[in-house]
Amino acid sequence: MPTIKLTLEYDGTAYAGWQRQPNLPTVQSEVERVLARITQRRLTTVASGRTDAGVHALGQVVSFRTDAILSPQEWARALNGLLPQDVVVHRVEFVENDFHARFGAVAKTYEYRILNGPTRSPLGRDRVWHVPKALDITAMQRAADHLMGTHDFSSFQGSRSNCDNPICMMQPIGWFWEPPQLHMRFTADRFLKQMVRNIVGTLVDIGLGRRATDEMNAILAARDRRVAGPTAPPYGLYLLKVLYHHDP
Amino acid sequence: MPTIKLTLEYDGTAYAGWQRQPNLPTVQSEVERVLARITQRRLTTVASGRTDAGVHALGQVVSFRTDAILSPQEWARALNGLLPQDVVVHRVEFVENDFHARFGAVAKTYEYRILNGPTRSPLGRDRVWHVPKALDITAMQRAADHLMGTHDFSSFQGSRSNCDNPICMMQPIGWFWEPPQLHMRFTADRFLKQMVRNIVGTLVDIGLGRRATDEMNAILAARDRRVAGPTAPPYGLYLLKVLYHHDP
Repeated sequence: MPTIKLTLEYDGTAYAGWQRQPNLPTVQSEVERVLARITQRRLTTVASGRTDAGVHALGQVVSFRTDAILSPQEWARALNGLLPQDVVVHRVEFVENDFHARFGAVAKTYEYRILNGPTRSPLGRDRVWHVPKALDITAMQRAADHLMGTHDFSSFQGSRSNCDNPICMMQPIGWFWEPPQLHMRFTADRFLKQMVRNIVGTLVDIGLGRRATDEMNAILAARDRRVAGPTAPPYGLYLLKVLYHHDP
Repeated sequence: MPTIKLTLEYDGTAYAGWQRQPNLPTVQSEVERVLARITQRRLTTVASGRTDAGVHALGQVVSFRTDAILSPQEWARALNGLLPQDVVVHRVEFVENDFHARFGAVAKTYEYRILNGPTRSPLGRDRVWHVPKALDITAMQRAADHLMGTHDFSSFQGSRSNCDNPICMMQPIGWFWEPPQLHMRFTADRFLKQMVRNIVGTLVDIGLGRRATDEMNAILAARDRRVAGPTAPPYGLYLLKVLYHHDP
């Protein structure tokens, strides 16, 4: 039974996140509903990871197995013809049978978008976090440097989660600062629950002068969610890319 | 009675355009409703021009006269506190008494945004025109060069309108092409009804090879809406900036 890999974009605004939940609209249930219509069977999909309610994706990766015989182009056309306007499949690939969107991922990249200007943006609502007061970007960058490398990120782990392994390897953080737009890119081998949003909330605290730049090391060392800053809102977060062993 | 100039951003998706209309949601009625709440009087606003249903604005200019005594900061706070999430005031200025947002405008800039890639974009829906087939950008640019300068633009005038003066002076068109994003900027002393959307629809026809590059001169010369291309959809269009004599 062939394994198929989908690369998805979605606007997370209307959804209670990726993962299927009873009586709630989720991206997974939309995708599985459409797959069931195409194949006339119930299928279960696996994503690279859950995204929270309101979080967007430009490159979420989803895999499933099926015996339906369609070409990648036919899959794309059928899926995109039936998916709602806020979800789309950008790419369909036949992959090796043992491909697994979650366990096979070797790195993921998230982008967090902040609008740092005095007034909110109607066209950016549900798309960026509006921080009205001026951020000290240099202070944020200096603090963020401490996150680079392999660390225990427990301090940035969503409190309700119980992940066994809190060690992640964070690559250098990418900064795009074209006032009033601030975009930050986080690439790591793995991410804990709400980790990016908790890091961004802490960095914004530092950028607003509520915390000192050099607190970052102590926050990491504490391994305690209560010492880090608040959770940044979901609508500024985008799952950009998931990397697999088989990728070029 | 002081005259006040507002610079507005709005997401046009939910509105039947700028101009007040009975029983339809319009940006003007939202702004005037809020001004009436603040001043406890009915006020009439004047905009630099109407925008069609679904068209967005990043820098629409609106003026009104009032005897309410508030500072620019107080006006901004009061307005933005009461306006819906899809409309915002970026700037409030006290201007000379004879300032008129429509008659005083000396130039306007519109941007049209196209997504030229095979799949639609959930995050770009209601924000860009999705043109799936590859556009020949060079052909579009060559054709657009003919629009530069002072011309009779009747061929690009919305058919239902009856504007007395069809002569506009078009400045060089700005191109931003970072595949799959194509943005075009149009600056002119004045624009006819649906002029940008009709120009863009014609340029896209040329970019798709449906029309020859050198047809543009003949289209202009015909002064007949029927010889130009289709009207591009409203949701790709943004009113970016309005220039006045008093501007620096």
